[in-house]
Amino acid sequence: MPKAVPRRADAARNLGALLAAAKEVFAEDGVDAPAKTITDRAGVGVGTLYRHFPKRSDLVLAVIRHEIDDCADAAPRLLEAREPWDALTTWIDGLVELVGTKRGLAATLHADDQDPGEHGLSAYIVGRLEPALDGLLAAGRRAGVVRPDVDAAEVLFAVPLLLHEVPNRDLAFGRRLVRVYVDGLRPPVSEHVTSPH
Amino acid sequence: MPKAVPRRADAARNLGALLAAAKEVFAEDGVDAPAKTITDRAGVGVGTLYRHFPKRSDLVLAVIRHEIDDCADAAPRLLEAREPWDALTTWIDGLVELVGTKRGLAATLHADDQDPGEHGLSAYIVGRLEPALDGLLAAGRRAGVVRPDVDAAEVLFAVPLLLHEVPNRDLAFGRRLVRVYVDGLRPPVSEHVTSPH
Repeated sequence: MPKAVPRRADAARNLGALLAAAKEVFAEDGVDAPAKTITDRAGVGVGTLYRHFPKRSDLVLAVIRHEIDDCADAAPRLLEAREPWDALTTWIDGLVELVGTKRGLAATLHADDQDPGEHGLSAYIVGRLEPALDGLLAAGRRAGVVRPDVDAAEVLFAVPLLLHEVPNRDLAFGRRLVRVYVDGLRPPVSEHVTSPH
Repeated sequence: MPKAVPRRADAARNLGALLAAAKEVFAEDGVDAPAKTITDRAGVGVGTLYRHFPKRSDLVLAVIRHEIDDCADAAPRLLEAREPWDALTTWIDGLVELVGTKRGLAATLHADDQDPGEHGLSAYIVGRLEPALDGLLAAGRRAGVVRPDVDAAEVLFAVPLLLHEVPNRDLAFGRRLVRVYVDGLRPPVSEHVTSPH
């Protein structure tokens, strides 16, 4: 029993190092980067990688889930540190990054003949991100800076839809579409503007 | 030569009647409705239908193009009759209807093994609708009710993306997403609100 705690701590540290290294290497060299590039950066043996993630798609999926967790965990921290509108829009910027990452990585899951949907990734996204975004929207509504008639599920569908790949358009184009949608989350103008008449 | 003019007028009238009838019958009975239902309503013979549209997909495509033309032609009329913001949002409501129609009909083009893209439908939409929407956005910008940093192409991509079919969500869900995006087309709040300080 006394030995179990450090071993478990080691395993958790190795897993965290692997996910962090894999995320960086995927971004730099693509998802087909050699396993040794990842394990060297993580400071673990290749055996450790394959014990945790027998297939490359297992590792890709774990990296995406880790990103989703980070995104969800950021919400309460943002609400502590910033004004509600700033917290909400910064969080949505993070969601845009997440979707951009996922877009690149999800292609691998498909190529590996494994639909991300079959991994329950959509359910995982909703389960983790909807409560996080609910908190941000509620704080914004209380402060009068977010319209009352939009729920978290709408935003969680709208952002990925607007970032959907479109022929001859890059991610910057999608970001411009998202920016307009996000500005539309403010309360209707009539509640803001005092009529000049 | 004297006989050519009435003949051409007859042909144009028959074609218009066929398209109007087909649009109604498709909406009521689906795109597999019997040809005779369409020709009876149009008051023409079945031979006239098949001479103009040998395949069902030809007729479906013509109905969609006709809807696109109607949508484009509505823009200048709306600008004459309404305030710029009202004209813009009413026109976008029409675009939502068009995309909803197209969504149903496009499935037939696919089923007929003919990608709408191969018919140049996307190019047709952009070619007809982008100038129409440009005029509406420009009028809104001149009146100070539309933000200056959005172009027609963005809106023409954003609306269909937000109306994209999503599991377990109906078209009303997509309309709610579009409504938020459209409200985001207003100028940024800072230009509207007089600071209370």
